[in-house]
Amino acid sequence: MKVSDLGEFGLIDRLAEVLAAQGGPELSGRLAVGIGDDAAVWRGENEALIATTDTLVQDVHFLAGRTPWRDLGWKALAVNVSDIAAMGGTPDFALVTLVLSSDEDAEAIDELYRGLAEAGEAFGVAIAGGDIVHGPTTIVSVALTGHGELDEHGEPLVLRRNAARDGDVVAVTGALGGASGGLRLLRADGDGSEDARALIARHLRPQPRLEAGRAALAAGIRCGIDVSDGLLQDLGQVCKASRLGATVWRDKVPVDPALRALDAQEALRCAVAGGEDYELLLVGDAAQIEQLRDALDVPLTVIGDMVIETEHRAVLLDEHAKEIDVPSGGWDHLRSEA
Amino acid sequence: MKVSDLGEFGLIDRLAEVLAAQGGPELSGRLAVGIGDDAAVWRGENEALIATTDTLVQDVHFLAGRTPWRDLGWKALAVNVSDIAAMGGTPDFALVTLVLSSDEDAEAIDELYRGLAEAGEAFGVAIAGGDIVHGPTTIVSVALTGHGELDEHGEPLVLRRNAARDGDVVAVTGALGGASGGLRLLRADGDGSEDARALIARHLRPQPRLEAGRAALAAGIRCGIDVSDGLLQDLGQVCKASRLGATVWRDKVPVDPALRALDAQEALRCAVAGGEDYELLLVGDAAQIEQLRDALDVPLTVIGDMVIETEHRAVLLDEHAKEIDVPSGGWDHLRSEA
Repeated sequence: MKVSDLGEFGLIDRLAEVLAAQGGPELSGRLAVGIGDDAAVWRGENEALIATTDTLVQDVHFLAGRTPWRDLGWKALAVNVSDIAAMGGTPDFALVTLVLSSDEDAEAIDELYRGLAEAGEAFGVAIAGGDIVHGPTTIVSVALTGHGELDEHGEPLVLRRNAARDGDVVAVTGALGGASGGLRLLRADGDGSEDARALIARHLRPQPRLEAGRAALAAGIRCGIDVSDGLLQDLGQVCKASRLGATVWRDKVPVDPALRALDAQEALRCAVAGGEDYELLLVGDAAQIEQLRDALDVPLTVIGDMVIETEHRAVLLDEHAKEIDVPSGGWDHLRSEA
Repeated sequence: MKVSDLGEFGLIDRLAEVLAAQGGPELSGRLAVGIGDDAAVWRGENEALIATTDTLVQDVHFLAGRTPWRDLGWKALAVNVSDIAAMGGTPDFALVTLVLSSDEDAEAIDELYRGLAEAGEAFGVAIAGGDIVHGPTTIVSVALTGHGELDEHGEPLVLRRNAARDGDVVAVTGALGGASGGLRLLRADGDGSEDARALIARHLRPQPRLEAGRAALAAGIRCGIDVSDGLLQDLGQVCKASRLGATVWRDKVPVDPALRALDAQEALRCAVAGGEDYELLLVGDAAQIEQLRDALDVPLTVIGDMVIETEHRAVLLDEHAKEIDVPSGGWDHLRSEA
């Protein structure tokens, strides 16, 4: 069997199986969240410790010659910060691994570093070290540590994918689809309009929702994930982990207004399947979500509900509660294109 | 200027410069060891937190078709454990990033995971998560966290590259050159002898010196580095960081006995410039080193001295104290071959 037959999520499940028996009782006891959430979490001395890693590969995650190096640096750190935000944590220190071909311009790498430093300053992260190796193409991989609080029982207090309950409402920060629209424009050179510039910025300079993640925990919410692979796919991960289904009302999805040049169908597709918006999906009871909305500066929109459903799917419904089929459900970087 | 003109160490210096001003006072204050040592170290609550990352790229760090996948998994984790050993710390949790081409065999990846799990069990590390992405070649990158103690002033108690003093002696654990000899044999198919198998195992299954690192701290030693790029190159990093020179006596270098089939000159070259032995270089006063030797199960050999020298070089001397020129000083994966 080939990796392309399994896809990224199939491989992760296999990894989890092989590793299930490992670690020893002492470490396994300290590990509160392992494979299968946005970040790993374990108990440190008097705090929860959080770690995550995310990798950008040239021509898979960014376009050579079209993604400015400084923006690439920003994004490589920001997507990891978003994983910490999705746990409700605070990021601290980053290790940066660069795979470079030896004929790359050193000035380009300086720009990459500047983008990393800018994002570090914006999100309170210090770059503490890393590794630079030779390889056939450019790859930027960041490992990021962070911390959170322990609850009154000494357990890490974090947002989990598996914490949704039947009857919870599903809410999302900000607007969706902009990053995916921006990627199209970056490929097609855009038209220089204000909307086009806004969309490209959404793609190149994600703004992780650190405040929203922490405020969600403070409001009593315990379930969250970031929108990295596409709304329906990421909500599907919550469904799978929580063993529930989810319904999303098409008319409630906050489609990025800068997508107004697209027809409504296409804009919706960007918003529900496009990925890389790095907004937060938060799932909790309606009163908690209401309380959180009042506490946030960023918009928070209720888009659907968690329901009992045996296939653990997230489905999109029209105004007649009829399911809408959305072609190609988000990103899976290893699976062959259908 | 191209990356190949700067080399890995030149790029790291540039990165350090660009990042020098970043981070904000709160984080910079917590960061005890940043770029330029084996691992990053910061103050957590009541403990020192340590993190490192190391990456293996196909056909740069391992040979496609000749490195068994299970050994690759072991090595990917073990080289990171060695960085924690070189700080005198204890490893805890690993994040594993795999870059895979989509036509890779899924069974091969299972073997890789098994090797990671074996090393995890051997060194007390739990695999806590990671990332799997598509790319043009196979790359395994591990980020590893660990911990150490704080001293009586609340500062991390770790081995540093910059802590050598004039008059200190230089000692090394185990034997050197075996990994480099094993790589040659792996390329050349070996001769199946016991020595050949031992050398190949040294290359494929490094055994980081965790106990030696911690025992060195307990003996009062404060300076160390692991032998990853080659004895003289790694000792050169200690010289540069400590602003001293070092002399190593050729006749004292513990050359791996399994290299006996090579002529003495070639075996010496493997031992002082070969790299990947993952032994520890420890630098301290003679009495501390003596005390440490008595406490260790693994051999510890005094091979030289730290001296005042303005070029901050590590040099190899013959029995007449004449410098021996060693061609090609260890690994620098980005610099073009001379």
